[in-house]
Amino acid sequence: MESTMLRIKQLLVDLYGCQADLDDDKFLERVLEESAVKAGSTVVNRLVHRFHPVGVSVFLILAETHISIQTWPEHGYAAVDIFVCGEGKDPSAAWDVIREGLKPESFDVKEITRSIGEHIRPK
Amino acid sequence: MESTMLRIKQLLVDLYGCQADLDDDKFLERVLEESAVKAGSTVVNRLVHRFHPVGVSVFLILAETHISIQTWPEHGYAAVDIFVCGEGKDPSAAWDVIREGLKPESFDVKEITRSIGEHIRPK
Repeated sequence: MESTMLRIKQLLVDLYGCQADLDDDKFLERVLEESAVKAGSTVVNRLVHRFHPVGVSVFLILAETHISIQTWPEHGYAAVDIFVCGEGKDPSAAWDVIREGLKPESFDVKEITRSIGEHIRPK
Repeated sequence: MESTMLRIKQLLVDLYGCQADLDDDKFLERVLEESAVKAGSTVVNRLVHRFHPVGVSVFLILAETHISIQTWPEHGYAAVDIFVCGEGKDPSAAWDVIREGLKPESFDVKEITRSIGEHIRPK
C-alpha cells in the first residue's frame, strides 16, 4: 500500500519526586509554554484545570499537535505527553525545559513512533 | 526502592481512512464524551479547537486523566489518546466507541504501560 505518511516521535514521560510545586497552575502553564517555544512549536489554544483539593492539568494545543501535563502533587508525580511534528520541531527540547522546571528525582521517558497522515489505496 | 505506584494502560491510536466527518467538532465531542462514559470515567473539563481551513482537536479532562483526538480531515486521519486510570476504568471500552464512531479503514493501536504515583525512598 502506497502512503504519504510522516513518522513522528511522541514522548510519554513519568516524573517522580518533583521538587517544583506541582499545584501551581500558573507556573506549570509557563513551563509548558516555554517548552513549546523551545520545541519550535506555536501554541494556538490552552486549557488549564485545577483539581480539588490538589492537582493540575494543562493542555496546550499546538499548530501541529499538543503538549500536556497532569500532576498529582500529593505524590510528587506528573505525567507529561509531548506530541509535536513538523520540520524543525524537536520534542526532546521541550522535555529538557520541563525536566529543568519540575526537577524530578527520577523519570521514565517512553519514545513512541507514530505514523500520521494518509494511507493511499492502490489504484 | 519501595513504591506505591499504579500501573495503567494508555492507548495511542492512529486511525486511517475514516469515513466519519473529521471536521465536525460537535460530532467528535459527542463521540469522545460517549467514549469517556463507556470507559467509566467522569468528564470534568473540555477544550474544543477548530483549525483553519480544516481540522479539529478535542481534549476531555477526566476526573482521572484524559482522552483526546486531533484530526486531519484532508488525510482522513485522526490521532487518539486514551489515558484513563482507576478501578473499573476500561480504556478499551472507550476505543470501541471511537472506532465505531469514526469508521476507520485501518488503525494502529499502541498500548503503553505507565507507572503513575509515588516512589518512596528507603528509610
